[in-house]
Amino acid sequence: MSMTRPVFYVSDGTGITAETIGHSLLTQFTDHRFVTDRIPFVDTPERAREIAGRIRDIGLSHGTRPIVINSCVDPELSALVAESGALMLDIFAPFIEPLERELGTMRQSRVGQAHGMADFETYHRRINAMNFALTHDDGIAVNYDEADVVLVAVSRAGKTPTCVYLALHYGIAAANYPLTEEDLEHDRLPARLRNCRQKLFGLTIDPVRLQQIRQERRPNSRYAQLETCKREVAAAEALFRAERIPVLSTTNTSIEEIASKVLTTLGIHREMY
Amino acid sequence: MSMTRPVFYVSDGTGITAETIGHSLLTQFTDHRFVTDRIPFVDTPERAREIAGRIRDIGLSHGTRPIVINSCVDPELSALVAESGALMLDIFAPFIEPLERELGTMRQSRVGQAHGMADFETYHRRINAMNFALTHDDGIAVNYDEADVVLVAVSRAGKTPTCVYLALHYGIAAANYPLTEEDLEHDRLPARLRNCRQKLFGLTIDPVRLQQIRQERRPNSRYAQLETCKREVAAAEALFRAERIPVLSTTNTSIEEIASKVLTTLGIHREMY
Repeated sequence: MSMTRPVFYVSDGTGITAETIGHSLLTQFTDHRFVTDRIPFVDTPERAREIAGRIRDIGLSHGTRPIVINSCVDPELSALVAESGALMLDIFAPFIEPLERELGTMRQSRVGQAHGMADFETYHRRINAMNFALTHDDGIAVNYDEADVVLVAVSRAGKTPTCVYLALHYGIAAANYPLTEEDLEHDRLPARLRNCRQKLFGLTIDPVRLQQIRQERRPNSRYAQLETCKREVAAAEALFRAERIPVLSTTNTSIEEIASKVLTTLGIHREMY
Repeated sequence: MSMTRPVFYVSDGTGITAETIGHSLLTQFTDHRFVTDRIPFVDTPERAREIAGRIRDIGLSHGTRPIVINSCVDPELSALVAESGALMLDIFAPFIEPLERELGTMRQSRVGQAHGMADFETYHRRINAMNFALTHDDGIAVNYDEADVVLVAVSRAGKTPTCVYLALHYGIAAANYPLTEEDLEHDRLPARLRNCRQKLFGLTIDPVRLQQIRQERRPNSRYAQLETCKREVAAAEALFRAERIPVLSTTNTSIEEIASKVLTTLGIHREMY
């Protein structure tokens, strides 16, 4: 085991792009330990100099060379950060030249555009999708006509986080339908869902995991009993099969993976915010 | 104006990393138009061949060479995708060799780890933070002791999306406090907030924008009148000044930027999910 390496995500904007790719890179070096810090809004030479000093000091106190995952677009700012002595990995640099050649134009350097404010219209769509997800979260009095996606599952199988993720990152109007005990007594879709078949996506989950999650929420309730979880999950899976609803197990699946599979399966194309 | 260029985010996982950096790159070429498509879960040679064929066809029908932003870790899969004839931008390749040299080890190729499932503990923390944000959204009966962050603002200034974002991406227990008319009659913090000063962050907004947002929510209400918006925003800003609460205007700020500034200002360090 080697020592802990300090890693800095340095950006002229939020640092989200730098942290996203940096995290992906670091997961490929599993036998190392990293301590990471995001340094956003490095958009002036003064701040770049200050940050370079801070990174240099942390390297000295760790006794090892820091790594900087850098997304500053302005080469002057990047050069100032590089004076820290860190290994500089500039996440845009390798791609700009091939893109310029392919497109036959020079890039326009713009500071921190990626996660900046889009136009009011786009922002509004995103916020509206979010409100939609939050107000259509319980399946009560929901008009599914307005939904792009309807997630169907038993309670605590992962519907809400997925709906919120879909809204926040793709502006998708994501509603959900919690399968009730009554629904589960039949092998047919609840009446309210029959008109929107093409929007339905089922989630399932390992009953043991479900039991853990429910136990934390309502300890020692009937709701949290393993028997209840097993029965509900089996009934939900039978319903999905009978009605040919696409289904995914959330047990070993991240929110991002669930969201991505839902979009791919239902054939919905949206750019990510 | 040039023709529209097809761009594909190809990944063995969700494609989120590829889309994030790809989007950042494309925003630097503002005089071009792109049509983008995310192709996730390209994790077998069969699927890679199928995708290469699809990309080649789309290039032919557009009459222009497609661009692939590729995050497949397995070089064999990348090589198969490259047979599409697209310009291949492999987002990890340029950084692996310098990292290997710096760390003195070879990377362990792992497919689609970045946005995959973390351990149950981590997942649980994330879901709990999300539940916290959703159940502490109205400021009623909230115990702010458990919160990491408390956003304070008038209604519709951006508290809820920011709380949800902080929970979803940083596992932050983010509560919010909606300033009521009664609160705004005083230049002092509401009693319930006085014990958690160091967690408070104020949001403000241009009254004209606020009026637009409220108008859409409750058309022609007193709540949505410009006069009301102006008075509330002025009172909230006076309160933040008097109590020295850090404040940010959300008018031209994305959710990501707000979240990033909140964390930086309050000195909270968390890795992104």
